[in-house]
Amino acid sequence: MEKPEIIMAPGPTPVPPQVYLAQGSPLVYHRGPGYGAVLREVTDNLKTILRTSNDLLIFASSGTGGLESAVANLFSPGDRVVVPVAGYFGERFAKIARAFHLDVRVIDYEWGQAVRAGDVSTALDEAPAKAVLMQQSETSTGVIHDVEAVGEVTRDRGVLLVADVVSSLGAVPLDSDGWGVDVAVGGSQKAFSATPGLAFVSVSDAAWAASKTATNPRFYFDWAAYKASYELKSPENPFTPAISLMLGLQVALRLHMEEGPPEVLSRHRILSEATKEGVRALGLDLFGEHPERAWAVTAVRAPEGVDGDELVAKVRADHRIILAPGQGPLKGKVFRIGHLGYYDMFDIIRCLAALELTLEEMGYPVKRGAAVAAAEGVFASR
Amino acid sequence: MEKPEIIMAPGPTPVPPQVYLAQGSPLVYHRGPGYGAVLREVTDNLKTILRTSNDLLIFASSGTGGLESAVANLFSPGDRVVVPVAGYFGERFAKIARAFHLDVRVIDYEWGQAVRAGDVSTALDEAPAKAVLMQQSETSTGVIHDVEAVGEVTRDRGVLLVADVVSSLGAVPLDSDGWGVDVAVGGSQKAFSATPGLAFVSVSDAAWAASKTATNPRFYFDWAAYKASYELKSPENPFTPAISLMLGLQVALRLHMEEGPPEVLSRHRILSEATKEGVRALGLDLFGEHPERAWAVTAVRAPEGVDGDELVAKVRADHRIILAPGQGPLKGKVFRIGHLGYYDMFDIIRCLAALELTLEEMGYPVKRGAAVAAAEGVFASR
Repeated sequence: MEKPEIIMAPGPTPVPPQVYLAQGSPLVYHRGPGYGAVLREVTDNLKTILRTSNDLLIFASSGTGGLESAVANLFSPGDRVVVPVAGYFGERFAKIARAFHLDVRVIDYEWGQAVRAGDVSTALDEAPAKAVLMQQSETSTGVIHDVEAVGEVTRDRGVLLVADVVSSLGAVPLDSDGWGVDVAVGGSQKAFSATPGLAFVSVSDAAWAASKTATNPRFYFDWAAYKASYELKSPENPFTPAISLMLGLQVALRLHMEEGPPEVLSRHRILSEATKEGVRALGLDLFGEHPERAWAVTAVRAPEGVDGDELVAKVRADHRIILAPGQGPLKGKVFRIGHLGYYDMFDIIRCLAALELTLEEMGYPVKRGAAVAAAEGVFASR
Repeated sequence: MEKPEIIMAPGPTPVPPQVYLAQGSPLVYHRGPGYGAVLREVTDNLKTILRTSNDLLIFASSGTGGLESAVANLFSPGDRVVVPVAGYFGERFAKIARAFHLDVRVIDYEWGQAVRAGDVSTALDEAPAKAVLMQQSETSTGVIHDVEAVGEVTRDRGVLLVADVVSSLGAVPLDSDGWGVDVAVGGSQKAFSATPGLAFVSVSDAAWAASKTATNPRFYFDWAAYKASYELKSPENPFTPAISLMLGLQVALRLHMEEGPPEVLSRHRILSEATKEGVRALGLDLFGEHPERAWAVTAVRAPEGVDGDELVAKVRADHRIILAPGQGPLKGKVFRIGHLGYYDMFDIIRCLAALELTLEEMGYPVKRGAAVAAAEGVFASR
């Protein structure tokens, strides 16, 4: 009896059985009060977790669709935007902006660096821009960028702030309205532990105002169409929604709210600390600036003589645990452990044990149990 | 013990329990051979059912996203397209084309009329156009447009033919390659009886060639990105796919292939005939041209003195069966019975019985059992 593979990549993440059951439940027809109630509940819970009173719109798409919706709804060809790029998802946001013919001012960082608000300020001094597009969690490096600090810069200047919180929401603190985030883009398959296929965006008044004059084409991702349908007496979607995924997300968010958003954040912090202490106890180095903030994913430097890709492949082949390899310039040099979502301490311990066994087999000197002991130390002190 | 509502609207449609179970099964991680095998199987089965050897790309989106992908990938602003509009979904295609700044030549029909190939020919004579965008099944009226005849016109002139087959595929005969369909757009939640949230498009060589020079912006729906990822040794998606929905569609397509595509079509024809004979036996009139072709959905004129919207609402309230109301100019005047998907003869009989009971309560003279008897007549003669 072989168990399913265990996902410890930064999304999709393990899914609670309650969510699977909801996805396997009879469809609620998407016109009428049944679906209206689902949509309202999901929307309200997402707004609570995002800490926003702005509008919240949900698309049947992956997170990338949500990012595209921001670019399509806010801008016209030639509009200048500032995009800090410190990893794969920074690059993706810049690519989307270029695909929509924006004037993209990239702030280039080494992968692994954190975005500095001062650099954003300088880029905005250079020439006026309509918006800053950034990640909160740069999934490729694990690094958490300081959205709050960038928000101070953008708010002072009346520049829109668009934050990709796909892999951070629910794992890392976010105060959308407090920090002046105009558009936050999230996805179902990360810390909420629902399955992939839903993206959502929050839209501030300033973002709505910008969308009114933006000429970039959009139809499927047209925010105004979603808002109009949500405001019907029984809220619905302009296009047929991914009903089963909504039923799954509804349950996932109920679990989130039952545990409590602050408690979910604390759990992520502790799981992250335990992972990092475990990795360090094996003599491995963490990758990226401010690892103490990286509650969503831990990036680790592959040690001398060990190829990160091989390590990831071997952990999967031997132990059916899926870690994430390094991307782009980090290929082979870094591996990543996702701990955002439906994880408890024994998931971390299992993963660290698999790491110990695999590294030892690959010829790296391992003191058996050292990583597990260090993680236990973190858990015991809570 | 209240049963779930029974959907007899033209999509989403009832879902087999096997599909629900698949949607509730553990995620297959989207990088690696497990998902690659799912993607390959689903793609191959869709190509068989579409009767095409062209590329087939799948998006996490509703069908509308698939339609948008065609407009975004094939055209540049100002490109002329011909769009026959004979109902709500014809209007939608025209709206998408306008949103992407195309030069849209609409051929206007009364709702309920069938598109005539001669009209398309005339519109193309008027001025050259790059493509014709049309429905096969105009869901709002039930009418099946003759894609084959339009295909003769477009092929002769080297004009691209884009067919929205969302609500017809699997319910009505289609021969994509034989008829010269360059791009066919389908969805998961119609005759396949999977749940909504997946769209797919077939792309001919001529369509690929057009996409090379098309400047309309696209990223999430960029065909080239999907093709590149599908061609990896283990096929994958460029963006995280809706894995659970893919697992559901995989099973739905297996059921389809086990029954056999021609047998599925025959079943739809018989269910359609039984529905129409039943409705006629109550003295009601069918709506729309060529009702004998309308194997996906039966549109019925609400009789004198009966409001179609009220009838639909009452059938749902009293019998938990969801019919579809008339849209646009047909509001109140027409109601629609969907019979595409996971239906057998008793689903039709149940629906006709509910119609008899409800019409009688609304004061329309009903001979009890007449509709059911007529449907039984159709089934008995097979």
